[in-house]
Amino acid sequence: MIIKPNLENSKLTRKINGFNENLCEVNIDVIEEKPLTLYLNNQEIVTMMTIGDYPDFLAIGYLLNQHMISLNDKIEAIDFDSDLDVVVVRTDKKTNYEKKLKKKIITSGCAQGTLFGDIMESFEEKKFKDKTKIKLEWIYDLSKSINLTPSLYLKAGAIHGCVLCKKQTPLVYMEDVGRHNAIDKIAGYMHLNNVKSIDKIFYTTGRLTSEMVIKSVQMQIPIVISRSGFTAWGVELARKANLTLIGRAKGKKFTILSGAHRIEK
Amino acid sequence: MIIKPNLENSKLTRKINGFNENLCEVNIDVIEEKPLTLYLNNQEIVTMMTIGDYPDFLAIGYLLNQHMISLNDKIEAIDFDSDLDVVVVRTDKKTNYEKKLKKKIITSGCAQGTLFGDIMESFEEKKFKDKTKIKLEWIYDLSKSINLTPSLYLKAGAIHGCVLCKKQTPLVYMEDVGRHNAIDKIAGYMHLNNVKSIDKIFYTTGRLTSEMVIKSVQMQIPIVISRSGFTAWGVELARKANLTLIGRAKGKKFTILSGAHRIEK
Repeated sequence: MIIKPNLENSKLTRKINGFNENLCEVNIDVIEEKPLTLYLNNQEIVTMMTIGDYPDFLAIGYLLNQHMISLNDKIEAIDFDSDLDVVVVRTDKKTNYEKKLKKKIITSGCAQGTLFGDIMESFEEKKFKDKTKIKLEWIYDLSKSINLTPSLYLKAGAIHGCVLCKKQTPLVYMEDVGRHNAIDKIAGYMHLNNVKSIDKIFYTTGRLTSEMVIKSVQMQIPIVISRSGFTAWGVELARKANLTLIGRAKGKKFTILSGAHRIEK
Repeated sequence: MIIKPNLENSKLTRKINGFNENLCEVNIDVIEEKPLTLYLNNQEIVTMMTIGDYPDFLAIGYLLNQHMISLNDKIEAIDFDSDLDVVVVRTDKKTNYEKKLKKKIITSGCAQGTLFGDIMESFEEKKFKDKTKIKLEWIYDLSKSINLTPSLYLKAGAIHGCVLCKKQTPLVYMEDVGRHNAIDKIAGYMHLNNVKSIDKIFYTTGRLTSEMVIKSVQMQIPIVISRSGFTAWGVELARKANLTLIGRAKGKKFTILSGAHRIEK
């Protein structure tokens, strides 16, 4: 694994005292959650609640997935100030999102404020071809190796995981209090490291709602697996994009909702 | 129970075909997810992803919890157009959120775009007194009766539940694809039906992040129980507000993170 959950980073969890059901004192690991404010050039874009690792990947992934920067924009600097909890992305083109942000087409069902209209317009162009295949056994191989990887989730709970995989191998394992942050960190990692998307599989612990499917399409990852459930619109969008959507992947069980033709025995 | 999950409403779920792990066809119930655009008077505020029930409660609860209307504002009309998926709230005072929305202090870790700064300012004033008590046995009584209630979650999954309770009795059980919508629907219900908050208990299936704690404080419900985990900042804010926070409530087990003095054997 290129990036795995960093259990050594003491800034990501905190020991907190509480009481158990017998009113006896307990001391447990609890996940951190803190604000990170993102600027694009001179403009304040959003304040995200995050565990705080990889602010550079999160910033770039967020801006890419929100169509606020494009793959062709030159990123001149990413400055992170850990005292102010601010990350500033500087590009060669001067950008202006005042008007766009005013439109406020913000989705909110457990969401990151996607500039929705814009993104749906380009959805059709991004339809997947059929080339990438997935072997049936990779689905449980991936679930198994991801679930057995020591993680912040296993240590402290209350956190989502997203994993970029190739064949049956997990490559980049990101966690965050918001599942959208975890996927954005992967998007940022992929962009800054020139990672090809079309031969990859994306595994998430979170539900497959419309937004998770839209992000996967944006990122051009053709196969998505989740331990959790899915919404009807998530399935509809996956079918529209010819994306392979697999949900409720637990142990040897799972459900394929879209793109079953990519699966080989 | 005054409001329980409505399993008769055929608009909330859809039958979808898929394949199981043996590549045999299956036909399953899947939860709906659709956009609902909220206007306050003449102004477009947000587009929310929701299952689509109780647009009136969702609209009012959202506006209250975002400090866009106050408890004293007179609501003149709530118009829902099911063809356009639009809900319009009309108040006696003409409101203007252009400037506020421009500030874009939007939280995003699985969030609804809280106008954060504003809300934290009034946090201190809303600190709970110690009067309300909770009996230890109510915690498992509530968990048990809520978990055994037939719900959209049990039918279709991929959905969060929020329940307003009094003593060991669940009163209003709301579900939604976004846990923030479920809590906002309860806030809207409470406001439109003049429900007292201070003797209530709030149960949720979702994680106790900072935003869930902030909403509970806004709504002045002094006791919060979750089946899921919690973040360090969620706990910190609960302690600051003197809110009783109970997490990881599963079967007879749970953890009290804040306000243990309200719990009686």
